[in-house]
Amino acid sequence: MAITRFGISLDEGLLKRFDRLISEKGYANRSEAIRDLIRDSLVKDEWEEGTKEAVGTITLVYSHHTRELPDTLADLQHHFYTSIVSAMHVHLDKHNCLEVLVVRGKARDIKKIADRLIGTKGVKHGKLSVTTTGREMT
Amino acid sequence: MAITRFGISLDEGLLKRFDRLISEKGYANRSEAIRDLIRDSLVKDEWEEGTKEAVGTITLVYSHHTRELPDTLADLQHHFYTSIVSAMHVHLDKHNCLEVLVVRGKARDIKKIADRLIGTKGVKHGKLSVTTTGREMT
Amino acid sequence: MAITRFGISLDEGLLKRFDRLISEKGYANRSEAIRDLIRDSLVKDEWEEGTKEAVGTITLVYSHHTRELPDTLADLQHHFYTSIVSAMHVHLDKHNCLEVLVVRGKARDIKKIADRLIGTKGVKHGKLSVTTTGREMT
Amino acid sequence: MAITRFGISLDEGLLKRFDRLISEKGYANRSEAIRDLIRDSLVKDEWEEGTKEAVGTITLVYSHHTRELPDTLADLQHHFYTSIVSAMHVHLDKHNCLEVLVVRGKARDIKKIADRLIGTKGVKHGKLSVTTTGREMT
Repeated sequence: MAITRFGISLDEGLLKRFDRLISEKGYANRSEAIRDLIRDSLVKDEWEEGTKEAVGTITLVYSHHTRELPDTLADLQHHFYTSIVSAMHVHLDKHNCLEVLVVRGKARDIKKIADRLIGTKGVKHGKLSVTTTGREMT
Repeated sequence: MAITRFGISLDEGLLKRFDRLISEKGYANRSEAIRDLIRDSLVKDEWEEGTKEAVGTITLVYSHHTRELPDTLADLQHHFYTSIVSAMHVHLDKHNCLEVLVVRGKARDIKKIADRLIGTKGVKHGKLSVTTTGREMT
Repeated sequence: MAITRFGISLDEGLLKRFDRLISEKGYANRSEAIRDLIRDSLVKDEWEEGTKEAVGTITLVYSHHTRELPDTLADLQHHFYTSIVSAMHVHLDKHNCLEVLVVRGKARDIKKIADRLIGTKGVKHGKLSVTTTGREMT
Repeated sequence: MAITRFGISLDEGLLKRFDRLISEKGYANRSEAIRDLIRDSLVKDEWEEGTKEAVGTITLVYSHHTRELPDTLADLQHHFYTSIVSAMHVHLDKHNCLEVLVVRGKARDIKKIADRLIGTKGVKHGKLSVTTTGREMT
């Protein structure tokens, strides 16, 4: 992991505004904030591409009282078990559950798994959030 | 939980296209697909509002070899422990970790916690994904 | 254009919240609001597909004092003239211009044109907004 | 407008990937690409804020054959004339029109105008795209 350094030129006023924004967001310094913007643009590109290995999280909110829903979701997850790394379950209240799955595979395949789970009858809300394997992202 | 029923009118061609889309996505029927669209629009509104109780997941990818980073993230999470319901950790490879936190509170506060964690030096990629407590979302 | 009508079933509480939201947004009735949700999901799908004919707008903000920029942008637009339907120019202040282009073609090609224009040196901010030809969207 | 210059440090592999991405997007150099990321993060922040002066474009697709729709849209636009800078109209085909409005004002107010127009009965698709006045964005 070789660190390289390069200069960027910028209008002073713009830099001041950026410094204010990143200090609000709790960044330690500009390099860190800019690295985050760079990595985020790479993650977006990976997901538009569709064919690279990617990692995502799928969040599902549902009532465990919905007839057969917990079983259906478990069956579906086992069907896709090669892509679903693990799952965490949170009891939001007496009825509502949140389940978040970590999914790994081609962006395109992950989207399909997300569609399938989120579309399951009884799931109240579902969301796919996209991220990266962390490789080549140092 | 009283179920109500109402009719909506729609052009036939549009309905055909929608039927095709939702069958690709694995929806059992139109009611289910439309309920999802409705709930998603309500979740968006809750988050724009900022002051309602909401639930989100924060995904962080980082290398656990980054000096002090695991400790810093743990400290931060404990600082916000009243809002962070729980966390799951996945070992992506020898170096890279994915951590996904379930966070609950006012949308506005959750955004701040996400900014703080994602902005921590060494976090390679972070993302806030927004959802709902599931209440009033039957 | 044959209008069809079908029923959807929904929890009463959810419907009440939805009614509140759509009246805030100024919708005349539920059918209209739900048709908008449906069409929006179809537009998203068209753009993910990439190969269907689509329509978008590209917004560019820049200073016309930036050396050679107006010429470069005009040249680029002429290069892509088969896809760019028309353009409107607004003088934001003494220095700043906003240009909004209506672009038509395959989603994939429109994205490339947007990248190329937004990436032009001196453009302060650019954005692609995606919509539809309106066909099969009655 | 004083230009300042500062260095950022980055892993070599990450920089290579970023260089590849920005050359695909047609950026002249890294400074330009990073300035775009910075300005985009500032625009997002302005719009979340809600109270700063902002500029946006509202795109509407509709059939001009829809009874009373052109009149209704014209009336609405005149109602908000202090915020709507100008409008461009494109004839997409025999029936379909695209109208794109440049709107200026507080982000919060622009959102309301967009909701109102997009929610108008008969509008097939509408979208608000957010940008900046260009000031303090050099």
